[in-house]
Amino acid sequence: MAGKENLKIITDKNQMRTWTRAMRSQGKTIALVPTMGFLHDGHLSLIEEAHKHTHLVVVSIYVNPSQFAPSEDLSTYPSDFDGDIRKLMAVPGGVDAVFHPYNLYDYGVESARCGNGVVSNGTAVVSCLEESGSGHETWVRVERLEKGMCGVRRPVFFRGVATIVAKLFNIVEPDVAVFGKKDYQQWRIIRRMVRDLDFSINIVGSEIMRDVDGLAMSSRNVGLSLEERQKALSINRSLSKAKSAAERGELNCKSLKSLVVDEIREAGGELDYVEIVEQESLEVVEQIKSPVVILIAAWFGKVRLIDNIEISI
Amino acid sequence: MAGKENLKIITDKNQMRTWTRAMRSQGKTIALVPTMGFLHDGHLSLIEEAHKHTHLVVVSIYVNPSQFAPSEDLSTYPSDFDGDIRKLMAVPGGVDAVFHPYNLYDYGVESARCGNGVVSNGTAVVSCLEESGSGHETWVRVERLEKGMCGVRRPVFFRGVATIVAKLFNIVEPDVAVFGKKDYQQWRIIRRMVRDLDFSINIVGSEIMRDVDGLAMSSRNVGLSLEERQKALSINRSLSKAKSAAERGELNCKSLKSLVVDEIREAGGELDYVEIVEQESLEVVEQIKSPVVILIAAWFGKVRLIDNIEISI
Repeated sequence: MAGKENLKIITDKNQMRTWTRAMRSQGKTIALVPTMGFLHDGHLSLIEEAHKHTHLVVVSIYVNPSQFAPSEDLSTYPSDFDGDIRKLMAVPGGVDAVFHPYNLYDYGVESARCGNGVVSNGTAVVSCLEESGSGHETWVRVERLEKGMCGVRRPVFFRGVATIVAKLFNIVEPDVAVFGKKDYQQWRIIRRMVRDLDFSINIVGSEIMRDVDGLAMSSRNVGLSLEERQKALSINRSLSKAKSAAERGELNCKSLKSLVVDEIREAGGELDYVEIVEQESLEVVEQIKSPVVILIAAWFGKVRLIDNIEISI
Repeated sequence: MAGKENLKIITDKNQMRTWTRAMRSQGKTIALVPTMGFLHDGHLSLIEEAHKHTHLVVVSIYVNPSQFAPSEDLSTYPSDFDGDIRKLMAVPGGVDAVFHPYNLYDYGVESARCGNGVVSNGTAVVSCLEESGSGHETWVRVERLEKGMCGVRRPVFFRGVATIVAKLFNIVEPDVAVFGKKDYQQWRIIRRMVRDLDFSINIVGSEIMRDVDGLAMSSRNVGLSLEERQKALSINRSLSKAKSAAERGELNCKSLKSLVVDEIREAGGELDYVEIVEQESLEVVEQIKSPVVILIAAWFGKVRLIDNIEISI
């Protein structure tokens, strides 16, 4: 399979919806693969997954300001739109449209008039979007699942993700949307949002892509020195060891976590968290009785990496 | 114009969406009129308004538990489904479908498993839904507009309204939705939600319906004694006086509010709030410079009534 020679790039949200509706009226089904650009093979695997489910595939490329705290790296977030387009033109099965909006929070005059100051919602959650003075004020929150793990250090993150995904769903109106299971908590949050708000969209989780050495693919991997990368291989190694141990009958989560913690610390990584949680509810478990997932975030040098492994016993 | 002799009643959300999609594929446009039933002429006027905008009209009848606090009157909320259906069959232009679901927060096994306990979101917002142990955990909040006025006494109300309306929009997928401007803050909140989340739905505000004596129509009016009803006429009278004063050049809101407050107090009403606010942002103004609305809530006996009047100078 080769990519497509022509790639439709749409920047206007109304044109995007018009395109989807025209395609649907011709009997076509549509998958959306939401991205923030700077694409790597992990993203491309999401597109290949999408092709299994629908006739057409739309990739969105949009760096969403509302999921970054003012202290985070919105302004330095990497982008390479030309490179992204080249990759999309070469991806097996191709891509039917790229949605690349300039600003999805610009509502014109009304927006500017209302955008005088930061909203206080009592929980001190403020993103780059509010700081910029946007009049946007509607937020989707998945209140249980957004707690814990990545939600602890990044209190605006999942609120911003759920909100922008709801917006993209309403603009693109896809039948299917594909998310990487590497961002496991995000994937579960989106599934829960779709259930709770009755979106008619099938959320597909795509398996983690790994380089040949086992490191989960991520835009952040380029920030690792060769030495740090060697050390970071302890993440996947420790997850595999814990899974094997569980499969051999070690169902005590304290013991399994120790395996992971020791392996990563010995390699020189600094753990943010290791949690063994129930796959649907993300509730911490002490003894494995139902399908779980081990979720990890760890620092190697200045790079924070996340990874996970599902265990279904 | 006469009503329709057959009325399609749909209770399943998937059947509802299937119906809409089938109609749309035949080139029909669809309006949704969301209600909690116990219909009066105010509701019926929304349906007549809807007919001006689309080929087909869907009325939803669903008492939404998530907009009631545990201390409020969910269990005693009035209902008369048979009476509602009779009224809908007689309404000019008719109704094409009634969506009457049993429980829009029942997500099956997964829901029950996750529903063990009330979510704490740091702001102590708990509705009848959480109290019932539902696994629902996704909330839509319009953070600026939900503050103040009716949001003060009812902190779960607008969160519940925005969330159920988002669900209904995703189930019914209408082109237009009609809301009464009597619930002015609610109408503005829904408009803002639609803008911020990019719903492709035109939100129409329908003018307040009044009985011949001037009282705004409401399900709650039946709770008024004859004497209380006489007193309650002071609401509309005071709003009209304030509007006339503004049109004659009195633009100071303190003075205009005094007119309203005095009139209602003299009649024996107990004010919950009187606010003069900018129409779009609902921000309190001190001097009228742009279109405003006077919003009132007041008690007459045990009945709390709301009303408003727009002033565009």
